[in-house]
Amino acid sequence: MAAPTDIEDLIGLMARLPGLGPRSARRAVLMLLKKRGPLMAPLAQAMAHVALTARDCTVCGNIGTEDLCPICADERRDTGEICVVEDVADLWAMERAGAFKGRYHVLGGTLSALDSVGPEDLRIPRLIERVRAEATREVILALNATVDGQTTAHYIAEALEGTGVQISSLAQGVPVGGELDYLDDGTIGAALRARRKV
Amino acid sequence: MAAPTDIEDLIGLMARLPGLGPRSARRAVLMLLKKRGPLMAPLAQAMAHVALTARDCTVCGNIGTEDLCPICADERRDTGEICVVEDVADLWAMERAGAFKGRYHVLGGTLSALDSVGPEDLRIPRLIERVRAEATREVILALNATVDGQTTAHYIAEALEGTGVQISSLAQGVPVGGELDYLDDGTIGAALRARRKV
Repeated sequence: MAAPTDIEDLIGLMARLPGLGPRSARRAVLMLLKKRGPLMAPLAQAMAHVALTARDCTVCGNIGTEDLCPICADERRDTGEICVVEDVADLWAMERAGAFKGRYHVLGGTLSALDSVGPEDLRIPRLIERVRAEATREVILALNATVDGQTTAHYIAEALEGTGVQISSLAQGVPVGGELDYLDDGTIGAALRARRKV
Repeated sequence: MAAPTDIEDLIGLMARLPGLGPRSARRAVLMLLKKRGPLMAPLAQAMAHVALTARDCTVCGNIGTEDLCPICADERRDTGEICVVEDVADLWAMERAGAFKGRYHVLGGTLSALDSVGPEDLRIPRLIERVRAEATREVILALNATVDGQTTAHYIAEALEGTGVQISSLAQGVPVGGELDYLDDGTIGAALRARRKV
């Protein structure tokens, strides 16, 4: 044991963060130890504060510090459109793009037969309730273009049949700034099938 | 702004850690948010505890939670040998190797004309005091094999002249498990000059 036990414990906890291993956690803790006042103490305080106050939004599943997340609490956002995402990370990515002005619904994962994740393990029943209760016009399925993501999208589309809501999904095609030469065959095929008149 | 302000603040602080950028800090915070109970709260607590209790050892400059670090407080460690290192990271690396059973002296950097770091900015005067006061037999200069490290080693060796202490430095040569083909010319030259009888 090189460092005192308390510091080794801290290194062990830091090493569990994604992107940090035992070596880089050690380096990060050493840097924190050198900047105890300006960085370590504020970071510890910010982390303790968030750990204490963060909670899942009771409506959409986004993470906030109140029972209603800032987006659900914002009256200027269109209640007629619900964008369904797998995860809070996806919600943040959508918000960074700044292109969507409706509300969200965070599923908390995807359906997966392998990991035995069923609709009840996700926020799918809650989504169907919301669509009925909020008189939603459109549900946008912004799920990842993976097998599990698309299976989940399909399941939700079927479950919402009969509610009269319009269901759409994100367009597939060439990424903005993307070069054809580096794209996979599936994306090029999808972009060709969904071609638009100029 | 995608996440609530408190969470964005936490991401900003996390992004200042070495090895984490804005994107990976966001990913780390999302992971912490998902594991609020089992990981985030204990990590915040451990960090706050270390930020509050960590201090530099008054004798050697190592980081500990008491005025005397665990190594200086350990009576089984030989007081006759002092291993001089640049940084706490180097001390930890020496301790992991487990080959040294004496005490340490952490300089806190190297002499550098460019960055105008002089002997008074490091713990060099304190080292000379210690060597006189503790009747040290040997000072081992375990400084990095960089220009600044070697300049500092040279300065310390000169400053300790007349105290009668024996001064040594780490051997230079082929790393254990190293292949000659991948070694730089300087290391091969040093290993050849310091060759030993078999």
